[in-house]
Amino acid sequence: MPRNKQIVLDSRPQGQASEQNFRLQEVDTPPLSDGQVLVRHHFLSLDPYMRGRMNEGKSYAAPQPLGEVMIGGTAGEVIESRHPGFAPGDSVVGMGGWQEYSVVDAGQPGMLRKVDTRQVPLSHYLGAVGMPGVTAWYGLQRIIAPQAGQTIVVSAASGAVGSAVGVLAKERGCRAVGIAGGADKCRYVTEELGLDACIDHREHADTASLSRALKLACPSGIDGHFENVGGRVLDAVMLRMNAFGRIALCGMIAGYDGQPIPLTYPQLILTQRMRIEGFIVSEHMDDWPQALRELAGLVGSGRFRPRETVSMGLETAPTAFLGLLQGRNFGKQLVKLT
Amino acid sequence: MPRNKQIVLDSRPQGQASEQNFRLQEVDTPPLSDGQVLVRHHFLSLDPYMRGRMNEGKSYAAPQPLGEVMIGGTAGEVIESRHPGFAPGDSVVGMGGWQEYSVVDAGQPGMLRKVDTRQVPLSHYLGAVGMPGVTAWYGLQRIIAPQAGQTIVVSAASGAVGSAVGVLAKERGCRAVGIAGGADKCRYVTEELGLDACIDHREHADTASLSRALKLACPSGIDGHFENVGGRVLDAVMLRMNAFGRIALCGMIAGYDGQPIPLTYPQLILTQRMRIEGFIVSEHMDDWPQALRELAGLVGSGRFRPRETVSMGLETAPTAFLGLLQGRNFGKQLVKLT
Repeated sequence: MPRNKQIVLDSRPQGQASEQNFRLQEVDTPPLSDGQVLVRHHFLSLDPYMRGRMNEGKSYAAPQPLGEVMIGGTAGEVIESRHPGFAPGDSVVGMGGWQEYSVVDAGQPGMLRKVDTRQVPLSHYLGAVGMPGVTAWYGLQRIIAPQAGQTIVVSAASGAVGSAVGVLAKERGCRAVGIAGGADKCRYVTEELGLDACIDHREHADTASLSRALKLACPSGIDGHFENVGGRVLDAVMLRMNAFGRIALCGMIAGYDGQPIPLTYPQLILTQRMRIEGFIVSEHMDDWPQALRELAGLVGSGRFRPRETVSMGLETAPTAFLGLLQGRNFGKQLVKLT
Repeated sequence: MPRNKQIVLDSRPQGQASEQNFRLQEVDTPPLSDGQVLVRHHFLSLDPYMRGRMNEGKSYAAPQPLGEVMIGGTAGEVIESRHPGFAPGDSVVGMGGWQEYSVVDAGQPGMLRKVDTRQVPLSHYLGAVGMPGVTAWYGLQRIIAPQAGQTIVVSAASGAVGSAVGVLAKERGCRAVGIAGGADKCRYVTEELGLDACIDHREHADTASLSRALKLACPSGIDGHFENVGGRVLDAVMLRMNAFGRIALCGMIAGYDGQPIPLTYPQLILTQRMRIEGFIVSEHMDDWPQALRELAGLVGSGRFRPRETVSMGLETAPTAFLGLLQGRNFGKQLVKLT
């Protein structure tokens, strides 16, 4: 069995996360028992939710235990199988974590999923046709529930989740407006993803300025908003929400290091009769097949061209992850392991 | 036709509202046209929403125009009628405003409603069996949608809306916990309304202390919250919300004078997958008949004994209204005009 490099959580961040919170180790891969599959990871997915797991405190998921391999989605190939449903060479997606190999109890539901890489490249199953894509689909379809002609705003619009939100909103006949950090990202959002406008939040020093830009980009106001960021981005959007507007709260990356991110104008929820709803996509597994079908179709047909930032080698995962939290990635952040 | 005393909005408040914003005037009552009814008001309803109408700014309702009679619910009797559906002596409820008489186009839907005062005293049609009661019913039933055994919290629990929320929650088999200002109000909430506990927010100097008190009163956490106040009360409740908790946002009286009332922990909406929804009861007229039936039954049977604070004479309306905004009333605030 091959040697396996792993990255474990070595300590919990005090405030901002740093490379010191992670530790690289090398272990033997254990022999397979019946029903198990050995997977070699080609790609590791890096996602903002991992930052929450590094904390001790109350969150939706149990904290990542210290000394254990960092949790994370992986895409790879089956090397060896003692499960009848999998054979060497199969392309598979699972939650293998920050390591080069994983041994998976393949019979447990949801642990390992075979994927078809003829139309959709393997890595996209960690992004647009994976958890981030379904996250976008659920928040848009089930919480925002947009109607054609309505205006939908999405923050972190060039990211793995945000890009899917924008494309899906356009598919539904909406005016879709992104918020992203930097001219390059905004250009991608409008030119490649096809959104109607994109606001570079770095050009706006305060909530009022960002809110004015939103007014220009959303002349009929905002009917639905998909929030990945929080803080002043959310404040600025709320100031432009129409009556009966819906906000799907997917992430608040602005506060992941423990910074206060108060919502400044909660009275607008009342005066505009808004609905704000938080959600976690793993609690809505019933919607995954339908969402993945639509997303695979969009990617397969080329109507949705997801961006990826790929970091090379497991050792680079911590740096890449910290960069993701700073918005230094462009689109889906991956680590390539082979 | 009788002379009619009126109170008009004379100026808009700068910050806190004051008596100087109102002006008393006396006018002739105009003669009736066909289809009109002359109503003598016995009771004028004072409600927190009126404070919002005094402002210029964007709100759910058009601002109250300067120089016009303050808007408001009224209960009274028909004095003269040129509409076949109404006869002198009929008890009626309408939106007559802050004045002694009103001339009503009785044929327009929703303008004037005959009520039965055999089981339910006339004044309660402005409170428990009127707009405040239906407000409670809608927020609880349609937004919080409680299940038996769940824990429901309501702020301003002794008020016209809050008291109905608590009683309706108990009717649905919930643990119901109130938050109110003062020992007298808390005693009423538990002893007369029958809630399981009531927290006196005046005994808690900060959010942390209030939140600890909520933990004791809600040992299984909070599943639904009906918010009338905003500010630190809402913060404290949010810290105790269970996963999938629902918050019906009905009022944020803490911010009605323009004070900032940030929501301090919006990340909890995400981590607890909460839903927060604002609403205005007048936009849900379909639910009124069902709600009023249940509320009339509860009041008629004595299971719900609403409190009232009654101020005597139209001239006292501004003072009574300002007192309501300060929480000086106890239960439904009315002005008796006859």
